[in-house]
Amino acid sequence: MNLLLLLDEDFQPDGSARLTGRRAQHAREVLRAEPGETLRVGRLGGLTGTGEVLENTEGLLHLRVALADPPPARAGVDLLLAIPRPKALKKVLPAVASLGVDRVVLVNAARVEKSYFDSKVLAPAFLQELLLQGLEQARDTHLPEVLVRERFRPFVEDELGSLFGREALRLLPHPPARQPLATLGVSSAPRVVLAIGPDGGWVPFEAELLEAHGFHPFTLGPRILRVETAVPVLLGQVALLRENISPPSGR
Amino acid sequence: MNLLLLLDEDFQPDGSARLTGRRAQHAREVLRAEPGETLRVGRLGGLTGTGEVLENTEGLLHLRVALADPPPARAGVDLLLAIPRPKALKKVLPAVASLGVDRVVLVNAARVEKSYFDSKVLAPAFLQELLLQGLEQARDTHLPEVLVRERFRPFVEDELGSLFGREALRLLPHPPARQPLATLGVSSAPRVVLAIGPDGGWVPFEAELLEAHGFHPFTLGPRILRVETAVPVLLGQVALLRENISPPSGR
Repeated sequence: MNLLLLLDEDFQPDGSARLTGRRAQHAREVLRAEPGETLRVGRLGGLTGTGEVLENTEGLLHLRVALADPPPARAGVDLLLAIPRPKALKKVLPAVASLGVDRVVLVNAARVEKSYFDSKVLAPAFLQELLLQGLEQARDTHLPEVLVRERFRPFVEDELGSLFGREALRLLPHPPARQPLATLGVSSAPRVVLAIGPDGGWVPFEAELLEAHGFHPFTLGPRILRVETAVPVLLGQVALLRENISPPSGR
Repeated sequence: MNLLLLLDEDFQPDGSARLTGRRAQHAREVLRAEPGETLRVGRLGGLTGTGEVLENTEGLLHLRVALADPPPARAGVDLLLAIPRPKALKKVLPAVASLGVDRVVLVNAARVEKSYFDSKVLAPAFLQELLLQGLEQARDTHLPEVLVRERFRPFVEDELGSLFGREALRLLPHPPARQPLATLGVSSAPRVVLAIGPDGGWVPFEAELLEAHGFHPFTLGPRILRVETAVPVLLGQVALLRENISPPSGR
């Protein structure tokens, strides 16, 4: 944990923050923060800064908070992601949050097993916990929005357009394609949407429907990657093309 | 599994292959391959092609093998990787193999916990199993070499030079650096070595020693990534810069 996330309900009328539960336990048992020491903190959805430990006892962490610094810049990327195996989803969501993705639509697809919908990983509280882990890792405060959609075609036909907006460059990594990512104008696009299929890929109907809705197919090369590898590979490549990996501010 | 890997000892004098164990079980229970059907196969360290099922019974898979196609091109990348948490290593090694890395040196570092050396993940058979999973995923046949080195300084001072060669561009993702990866000449380097530190990073002595041995520091941006995310992100970026992600051959 590189950043202790503070929630609205932690804040007291005097501006200090009182934390309980997992975060207080982490501060006591792992960080071993003594009164007078300073922790790096961030307010969920807001600024980052420092928290001076006023009290760190069994189950309670009391901080004097000073927030002044913006979190890292957004990646400008959204994902349309066929629901991966629960084990893969548990790896993908923290990575996605740590890489600054704004929105993830987890969508059904022909090669998504029906049983995945019953996974506890898709419960909102579980999803949020995975995303928070990613934010704490990357010192970000912006929680990605996660939507789950059980019907692929109605989502693409009726909802996708208003959700992602016309200005976003829509990209479809798809093995039969030959166009490389670097030729698709990622660097000048205001935003990017990546549609990443399940292990085994989108079936032809799905890929065709996405192409009909403006998604540009491109090749990831001859290596077939697992979803949990393809997601960070692609987000890293998009970030490089967008030069979004800017130098740190020097602190 | 997108490729069934055949080992030298599977091959019979008549050129057919007889498989037992996990692979035979997979072919029967998951692929449900009937006699006459064709499976995609590759010979470890060699070519890829097809295997026509001659027999698929309890514990034995007998294939008529035709190998003619080269595996995907190598990435031209080696990794010097501070030994990650065993749980992270189990994610990183299949990814590394699927992305075509040639050699991984797992090295000790100040922020590597001593207990990691006792992990069963570092046993040669366990390492190999993780790498094979990555090859089967990416349809590659080239097993990366993995070395484990318990002493950082002697490795860097005495062994690193001969192991990686002078022509390789040595790169050090390191938070204090400001140079972006795209400016370091990756596209024209014959090979690349990436030195990826543990969660928490290399300590200053380690980073300085690596810099003294020709590693160029660069920034990954303000987001601090877990090792299992940083590795595919960086390998994806290096591949993009090297245009190593070439179009598939069209089959």
